[in-house]
This record gives sequence, structure tokens and C-alpha cells, in this order.
Amino acid sequence: AGGSTWVAVVAAAGLALALETLPTVLRWLWVRRRRRPRREVLFFPSQVTCTEALLRSPGATPSGCPCSLPHGESSLSRLLSALLAARVSLELCLFAFSSPQLGRAVQLLHQRGVRVRVVTDCDYMALNGSQIGLLRKAGIQVRHDQDLGYMHHKFAIVDRRVLITGSLNWTTQAIQNNRENVLIVEDEEYVRLFLEEFERIWEEFDPTRFSFFPQKERAR
Amino acid sequence: AGGSTWVAVVAAAGLALALETLPTVLRWLWVRRRRRPRREVLFFPSQVTCTEALLRSPGATPSGCPCSLPHGESSLSRLLSALLAARVSLELCLFAFSSPQLGRAVQLLHQRGVRVRVVTDCDYMALNGSQIGLLRKAGIQVRHDQDLGYMHHKFAIVDRRVLITGSLNWTTQAIQNNRENVLIVEDEEYVRLFLEEFERIWEEFDPTRFSFFPQKERAR
Repeated sequence: AGGSTWVAVVAAAGLALALETLPTVLRWLWVRRRRRPRREVLFFPSQVTCTEALLRSPGATPSGCPCSLPHGESSLSRLLSALLAARVSLELCLFAFSSPQLGRAVQLLHQRGVRVRVVTDCDYMALNGSQIGLLRKAGIQVRHDQDLGYMHHKFAIVDRRVLITGSLNWTTQAIQNNRENVLIVEDEEYVRLFLEEFERIWEEFDPTRFSFFPQKERAR
Repeated sequence: AGGSTWVAVVAAAGLALALETLPTVLRWLWVRRRRRPRREVLFFPSQVTCTEALLRSPGATPSGCPCSLPHGESSLSRLLSALLAARVSLELCLFAFSSPQLGRAVQLLHQRGVRVRVVTDCDYMALNGSQIGLLRKAGIQVRHDQDLGYMHHKFAIVDRRVLITGSLNWTTQAIQNNRENVLIVEDEEYVRLFLEEFERIWEEFDPTRFSFFPQKERAR
């Protein structure tokens, strides 16, 4: 009977330990099985590829584009895909925006009912091929600064879930010729911090607060 | 004896389960206890603060700076701290570098024996207050492009462990006047990808491969 008492004690201890650790083990397994959040780094210059398939409107013919450009993936096509994944909202904070492909992507999202808001820099709104006028004409809200400093951010927030940020201005010159980087990060904390920055700037650039024709003293 | 056999079986099963889950539990506890990797987002413009305490050489007097600037933390001071944490290596990939504080920080690291390597853009090396000449004079290796596109990155890698990247050029204009962002990320994957990009550029900008006085056709 002494032996069986000892065995019972060990059994109880073993079971208790097993039961105690069970939630921990289950939690660990759950954490391991969760979908890995999106994390991508794009480097530029981007290979020049055809992006028509990505930018085709819903009504267009589904056949492939017959142009002579390569039709594979590129840094630009991956950036376009990340943007075109938006279903609800898109915040853009861009120093310079003149890339026609990226402009078309933003217009497509607006047509699909995505809530697009754009913040940009007043000095670069009128650069060659600027998309800003086209976006406004299409009914997209754009706000810009009125001061000496540059609005030099280059970030986008997709569906309040994915942050896209880096050194890249959205110009063809930068996409095709410059050494640039763009991070695509699905991360709550980063998205929260950059959304807060976006909302601060959005309020600060409220056009009802503008002083028209300010006497700028630009120290260039 | 039948009861004691049953108890022994349960005991064995309990112990086996406990022992099997033990490594998992230990691993989970270890992961939980590891220091949380560094993750910080800095927004600019930075408040103008005194950074003398951070940039003081080892031999200098330890008393506080008597200047009238605020002496608290700012985005610039946090960027300086992240850089000055370097003990082994610092890779810099910077479109424009004219901030005297950041220049002093890089020179301090070089004096402390940190291996500093700098890549920059040829068109911005001579901008007002450029730090590039001073770094070279101090014996720091600097390489630059010779082509039409810009080396537009703005990143640093500290001890092959921490990536610092964003929209900020290292100029006083940008630090004090612009809307900018800088991520400070301790992350193996990001560091690896950006180090690879650095090494690619470092090799491509090898000065023994330069064609001197190239006939540049700049399409600005």
C-alpha cells in the first residue's frame, strides 16, 4: 500500500503539471499558426514592366496587354498591388506625386468606393506631370501645407492595417532611376502612429484656415 | 494490486505528458523573457534642443551645457542616441548630409574605433554645410555614385543589428522645418535586406571603377 500511495502522489503531481502547462502549450501553438503579418521591403530603381493587368478597370477586356514591356513582377507592380488591396480607406502623405501608374491606381480605388485622402506639399503640387490636379478633378480630397517647411513624408496607409513608407517619392524619375526603399508593414503600432501623424497634418492643413496669398519668405 | 497498476499507468502517462511539454514551456518562457527588440518611430520637425551632453568627447568636462536651449529629449536627440549606441560598425546611406550634430556623432563613433562606411549622392555632396568633406578628412571612407539617378536612400545600420530608415535627409532644414519620419527597428530580416542593399551599392560605387569627368547628360 505504501508503494501505491507513492505512485498515486507522482501520478497526481504529473497530471497537475500537465494540466497546468496545457493552456500555455495551446497558446504557443495558436501563436505559431496565426497568419504571418505582411512584411515586405521593395528596393528601387524598379524594372520597367507592364502594369496594365493591375490597372485595368473592371469593365475592360480580360485579355493580356499586347505591349512589348516585360509582364512579370517588379517593385512598382508590388507597390501597386499593395495599394490596390485597399477596400475601405487609403491615406496618402506624399511630398511629390507624378507617377501616372500610381495616379491611376488611386483613381481606381476612389471609383471603387475606397475613402481616399491625400496630403501633399504645396511646392511640389505643380511639378511636371503632377497627379494632384487629376485626383482633385476626380473628386478626391487633397490638402497641402502653406508654410516654409516641406511636407516630406512618403507614406500610405491601406485599410488602417498596412503601412507603406520609405524614401520613394511617387515620381517616374524616382521609380525608374533612383536608389530607393519602401517598407510594406502590417503592424498595429506603426499604423496607429502614422495614422495619428496623418490626422494631425490633415487638421493642420484644413483649407478653411488658409491665409490666402501669404507673403512667403522662402530661404532657398 | 489492480488499483495500484491503474494508478501507475496514469502516473506514467501524466509524467510523460509533463516531460514532453516541458521544452515547449521553457522555450515559451524564454521567448517571453527576452528583451523586447527596439522599435521606435520619430516624427519631425524636431524641437530644437541642446545636444552637447550627447556629443561631448570623453575628455570634456562633465558639467551641463550652459546654453539657453531646452535640454530635454527631442526627435533629433533620440536619433543621435540610436546612432551613438554603435560599438562595432555603422553603415550610412544618405542622399544629403549637412547636419553638424549628426556629423559630429559620426566623427565621434569613428574616433571610438567604430567602422564607419558612408554612401552618398554625388549631386548633394557639395550642398551648403555638407559633412561629407569633413568625414573624409577625418579618415572615414565615403563612396558616391556617378550616374543620373539619385542615391536617394536615407538609412543607417548600427552594429548590424538596428536599422534606422525613413524620409529624413540629414540636414538641419529637414530636421527643424520638415514633416518627416524615421523608424528605428531592431529586426534581423530588415537589417539583412538593407545590409545587402548597402553592400551592393558599396561595390557599385567602388572608386577604382570610376570614369573620370564623365559627360553627364542631366535631364532635370
